Amino acid sequence: MKVVDMNSDLGESFGNYKLGMDDKILEIVTSANIACGFHAGDPSVMKKTVALAVKNGAALGAHPGYPDLVGFGRRKMDIAPSDVYNMVVYQVGALAAFAKAVGTRLQHVKPHGAMYNMAAKDAKLAEAIAQAVYDVDKDLILYAQGGTESIKAAEKIGLRTASEVFADRSYQDDGTLTPRSQPGAMITDEEKSIAQVPSMVLEGKVTALSGKVIPVKADSICLHGDGPKALVFANKIRSVLLENGVKVAASGTFIK
Amino acid sequence: MKVVDMNSDLGESFGNYKLGMDDKILEIVTSANIACGFHAGDPSVMKKTVALAVKNGAALGAHPGYPDLVGFGRRKMDIAPSDVYNMVVYQVGALAAFAKAVGTRLQHVKPHGAMYNMAAKDAKLAEAIAQAVYDVDKDLILYAQGGTESIKAAEKIGLRTASEVFADRSYQDDGTLTPRSQPGAMITDEEKSIAQVPSMVLEGKVTALSGKVIPVKADSICLHGDGPKALVFANKIRSVLLENGVKVAASGTFIK
Amino acid sequence: MKVVDMNSDLGESFGNYKLGMDDKILEIVTSANIACGFHAGDPSVMKKTVALAVKNGAALGAHPGYPDLVGFGRRKMDIAPSDVYNMVVYQVGALAAFAKAVGTRLQHVKPHGAMYNMAAKDAKLAEAIAQAVYDVDKDLILYAQGGTESIKAAEKIGLRTASEVFADRSYQDDGTLTPRSQPGAMITDEEKSIAQVPSMVLEGKVTALSGKVIPVKADSICLHGDGPKALVFANKIRSVLLENGVKVAASGTFIK
Amino acid sequence: MKVVDMNSDLGESFGNYKLGMDDKILEIVTSANIACGFHAGDPSVMKKTVALAVKNGAALGAHPGYPDLVGFGRRKMDIAPSDVYNMVVYQVGALAAFAKAVGTRLQHVKPHGAMYNMAAKDAKLAEAIAQAVYDVDKDLILYAQGGTESIKAAEKIGLRTASEVFADRSYQDDGTLTPRSQPGAMITDEEKSIAQVPSMVLEGKVTALSGKVIPVKADSICLHGDGPKALVFANKIRSVLLENGVKVAASGTFIK
Repeated sequence: MKVVDMNSDLGESFGNYKLGMDDKILEIVTSANIACGFHAGDPSVMKKTVALAVKNGAALGAHPGYPDLVGFGRRKMDIAPSDVYNMVVYQVGALAAFAKAVGTRLQHVKPHGAMYNMAAKDAKLAEAIAQAVYDVDKDLILYAQGGTESIKAAEKIGLRTASEVFADRSYQDDGTLTPRSQPGAMITDEEKSIAQVPSMVLEGKVTALSGKVIPVKADSICLHGDGPKALVFANKIRSVLLENGVKVAASGTFIK
Repeated sequence: MKVVDMNSDLGESFGNYKLGMDDKILEIVTSANIACGFHAGDPSVMKKTVALAVKNGAALGAHPGYPDLVGFGRRKMDIAPSDVYNMVVYQVGALAAFAKAVGTRLQHVKPHGAMYNMAAKDAKLAEAIAQAVYDVDKDLILYAQGGTESIKAAEKIGLRTASEVFADRSYQDDGTLTPRSQPGAMITDEEKSIAQVPSMVLEGKVTALSGKVIPVKADSICLHGDGPKALVFANKIRSVLLENGVKVAASGTFIK
Repeated sequence: MKVVDMNSDLGESFGNYKLGMDDKILEIVTSANIACGFHAGDPSVMKKTVALAVKNGAALGAHPGYPDLVGFGRRKMDIAPSDVYNMVVYQVGALAAFAKAVGTRLQHVKPHGAMYNMAAKDAKLAEAIAQAVYDVDKDLILYAQGGTESIKAAEKIGLRTASEVFADRSYQDDGTLTPRSQPGAMITDEEKSIAQVPSMVLEGKVTALSGKVIPVKADSICLHGDGPKALVFANKIRSVLLENGVKVAASGTFIK
Repeated sequence: MKVVDMNSDLGESFGNYKLGMDDKILEIVTSANIACGFHAGDPSVMKKTVALAVKNGAALGAHPGYPDLVGFGRRKMDIAPSDVYNMVVYQVGALAAFAKAVGTRLQHVKPHGAMYNMAAKDAKLAEAIAQAVYDVDKDLILYAQGGTESIKAAEKIGLRTASEVFADRSYQDDGTLTPRSQPGAMITDEEKSIAQVPSMVLEGKVTALSGKVIPVKADSICLHGDGPKALVFANKIRSVLLENGVKVAASGTFIK
């Protein structure tokens, strides 16, 4: 029986600022990527989010980002890989402590925003991140898009990986996502968007924007939880998976 | 044979800003209190300081502080104990990850500045801090001044504690330090300052500012490493201890 | 004809985080207290908020706070008055530049949260704030609760002041607000809450929690804009003022 | 009589962290570029630095940077020009308030680090910065390296500019500085370094790294004040200028 994970970015509130519908999306996804205080989140939000994820049976993951709260970690920063290594060790360690404080541990790490995007293409950055994750806990699973430098670096060092796919994004022939700056990047037709998921998970195939059918690795599906519409969409994805006989479970239960 | 620890605050540089003579003081002390990024320090400084401490054989400790870089964590902040709990979990976890990354672990936690001072007198704050340390790792030793709420809270919860003393500060009859705002708070006569150390360690006694001899618990001696003069002083303290037949070793080797 | 100002805290969004319904409350109030980046707000939010206030004809005010984004400037901090002076100069100057960039200038300054509350009772802090405002622009009006050290310090130095009142808070016999920790602090009966406004403005009187009628100075009414309910309430206050023949206008048009 | 300005980056201390020998370099230079709290500096450092510059008769300039204290504003960040505009308005306004508080005003603005370097080549960024400076105060002078997009944008909008040169850096044939990553970027021979200054100022010529003599515009000479060696060097530059009959004065006195 085919199994797939569903992950979402969570714990992105900060102090007096609330973001996301964490309690709702946690009823749907199996893995929680929890912000660690650099691009979003703060210690009190982290504690609360860990408790909420545990209560909902979701696996815990660190979601480290660049130190750019006002830019939400989405702005490219030219940071030396050795400094990124240290940022990742720091943030993963901080979240791991909250997990330990409630008697559990982290399952995975998924870098956020600009760090995620830059590492996908930059081997040195990817290696620094993978090494940091490995050094803190070699049992952690690294989440990234399939075929990226991030996945390569993690595999090279001996980390388990989860290749994630996106339901609402279109793919290029080389397996990369169509850049948001280009037409057709977002799949706005919800039916079409949902329809590409079972094929990605069961057959490892997706129809690229060009019409060409290309291979894709789908260990986990990335979902948003930042609005009522996103929640409905996430629920539909989950339903269509179950209808197609796919089991939905946290990556730690099936990734080797 | 009597044993005592010597500790110092380290890793307080930040980015382009350098502070302290960490490499020199680490040749003298046995336990390093390493800043965790809130009042001082940053991930790259933390990594470097952990490496330097390990190289010098000093035991590692987290030195969490208030989120007040510009005030160096020295300004009182009215923060809810539950938020302080989360800040301590976060910072201890972050530093623990750097220790783990080089194959070792933390020995202790010593709160910094205003957090240290406020917890000494505030039972609820002290309990929040002790609980945080305990929840992250119940084998950690909490450093605080003897007789404070911090020590009481740590003992109550089952943490090991190290009561620290200061060579260059005078004591009140009740065992507290003479506030810096009062005359005689600092012992400016170096001879006198050094002379009070062996008595504190070997006999558990110190002559208070009033002239009265009072009991004092001296598991560790707190030393500064922020200038050539401080280093000479620290060295003299170490020498006078050895001359008096006192062994100097990290608290983790003798605290039960 | 009696005139009164209505003010509200605005521009408290930050980066990706949205807070408040600034566009709606600006249709009601006459003076905008705009966050300056320390407790809330960022340069881009400040620019946008200044434009929005100008568009709605609201007078511009700086709303400086403590450097505590995660605590939203609500936590007491033990900061030296000379440092608070510098923080206020900095923040008022920053906002004044956005006003100047669109060809206008600031009308007033109203400290935020813990800074506002602490200065109300602490003469040295109040003097530091008044001096900072005066030194940046002696034509600015300082907003504070009537009878506080803040008002006294501002008057002493020669600043114009606007004493503000709260519709939804009860008063003690000495004219201070009933602390939120005490029963009856908030007036939950909306009718009663609205009813106390015309009396405060027209007669300079309010019925304290004890039932005693006490004098009160009402140059401006402080209103919230952080939810649909708050907006309805603010609108009712405005209506009841107009019904009672009170003119609603920015403080700069009538404060001497 | 030929006149030239000498400028230096100042006020880069932060809280407990001290950087630079501001009091010494201010005895030599005529224009002070004062950090504004984003990449370095804090409100209290700003106030102190403004007072020190005024005392030494140096003209005041804002030195805005990216919001990256840990990276000292030296790391490239991919920030939208509209956001950079707002950052510059904010920082220039904040420093201008400190100038106003002591009865004076700013002479110039010089962006720092990565902002300076990126704007030199990026027309949109340069335009955003020039517009921000213009909107806050159209009498301000923008400092940048000659021939850059920064100078072009400032001239286009109607700002006065000061083209600055570096004594210790070698030039390429196109007038740009040899990148630090290339051999020969720094002129390590002090004699040679000092010797190129009078020629740049008096003749508007410099011998590029290739040996070719190229034109250069020298309104101001940029000097460091971060160590005893830098101070001696700055003094020698000043002496050689005076010996060559060049007057040294703040740019505001002679730039049209």
